[in-house]
Amino acid sequence: MELRQGKQVYEMPHQLTYYECDDTGHPTLGMMLSMMTMVSDAHSIALGMDTATIQQTGGAWVITEYDGEVATEQPHFGDQVILGTRALAYNRFFALREFWMTDAGHEKRYFHLRATFVFMNLKKRRLMSIPAQLIEPFNSPEQKRLPRLAKPASLTTTDPASRQYRVRYFDIDVNHHVNNARYLDWLLDPLGGEFLRNHRPVRLVIKYQHEVRENATVTSQFQLVKKTPGLVSSHRLLVDDQVCATAEIGWVEKSIQK
Amino acid sequence: MELRQGKQVYEMPHQLTYYECDDTGHPTLGMMLSMMTMVSDAHSIALGMDTATIQQTGGAWVITEYDGEVATEQPHFGDQVILGTRALAYNRFFALREFWMTDAGHEKRYFHLRATFVFMNLKKRRLMSIPAQLIEPFNSPEQKRLPRLAKPASLTTTDPASRQYRVRYFDIDVNHHVNNARYLDWLLDPLGGEFLRNHRPVRLVIKYQHEVRENATVTSQFQLVKKTPGLVSSHRLLVDDQVCATAEIGWVEKSIQK
Repeated sequence: MELRQGKQVYEMPHQLTYYECDDTGHPTLGMMLSMMTMVSDAHSIALGMDTATIQQTGGAWVITEYDGEVATEQPHFGDQVILGTRALAYNRFFALREFWMTDAGHEKRYFHLRATFVFMNLKKRRLMSIPAQLIEPFNSPEQKRLPRLAKPASLTTTDPASRQYRVRYFDIDVNHHVNNARYLDWLLDPLGGEFLRNHRPVRLVIKYQHEVRENATVTSQFQLVKKTPGLVSSHRLLVDDQVCATAEIGWVEKSIQK
Repeated sequence: MELRQGKQVYEMPHQLTYYECDDTGHPTLGMMLSMMTMVSDAHSIALGMDTATIQQTGGAWVITEYDGEVATEQPHFGDQVILGTRALAYNRFFALREFWMTDAGHEKRYFHLRATFVFMNLKKRRLMSIPAQLIEPFNSPEQKRLPRLAKPASLTTTDPASRQYRVRYFDIDVNHHVNNARYLDWLLDPLGGEFLRNHRPVRLVIKYQHEVRENATVTSQFQLVKKTPGLVSSHRLLVDDQVCATAEIGWVEKSIQK
């Protein structure tokens, strides 16, 4: 297996476990986001920035948005895949990264997303400027204005379908808030098993606005809109009346998948 | 890294991901169970019994109980560990396996558990005899009576602490029931963040009695009993009035951990 590993680009092999996959045997959207965090952590570590180095700054990398495409053909648990990431550009407060998962021969691309990273002061729970020693090793271009990722379409109905979720202890990650991959379970679960088994996600746009903390109860609202071809679901997660995340997911029916 | 790989014994390397770990950075009990399923799957595959071969029988391996010890010293995400399993013995309906996780040098043992496997007919949702072609390759001894694993202590209170959990779509695995590792989140979450951050599990006994299906609501009850040293929690999971699982977990306070 050929892996690209340099300052800007980093790839790692990964064997898909069954617990990264849903009941159809393919990776879940939530686990795709987890795998992206894994490969960007591995990239940092490979360039000498381990967890301890990052913790010394008093901050942590936090992802504020994703935007990208998911292929209708997906690998199966047990399959060997390649996870990759590239540091695209950065400025004082934002860093843009690209992520992909391909087969072992780089022939099939299973997903391709871009993500915006910020750096959060873990005590004050707010943005801090990105420490130079944590961004310069990636050798990515510094840009005053970074390309903007797409924004999720807003819900247009005043009466969306809705479900409530209590934050569980194991939703909380080392940054003491709900891990951003967990949001996907809340976003998708209200769509129901029948919908989720008969459709495949092909596009994901998600924007994280406020962190969700321990003991909160999250309301997950969604609205389905038909497009040609396929469907789009718009989503909103709220804690009390505060919007914590919005998302838009494009779907195709399994029978018409390419 | 030296790995033992034979008919009865199988070891695989594994780099701990952050999503296998809780907010203290150490693997969760639920993910330990998932990793055990991963290494026993890998063992089957290494001996030529892949998912397709197993599916042809119309059945699937299902774990009915675990019993074992967890070390107070645990690895951290990013660490390279070894996952191991040994096929101990079997008879017509039951197979006994041993599992462990060690550091890369086989010096520290992070957990050690035994598990009983049965084979479930996926259509009839009931036990079937273990197909010879799926057990003989392990070359483990056939025994009329297998050693019995410990039974979880029963709750003695009539008024246990209790929480309800709705089964979510992503709790369902390829066998179309809730994955047995997910039970651990329901068992542990009612203990609360403060307890879970200040205690470490050192022993786990769990017995799965009935499968939990999609759309069910699970009641998780527990009772804490002081022992010297440490604490024991007894757990019961119910759907309606049917007991689906019972468990007993031994704990030590972090301040007195060895």
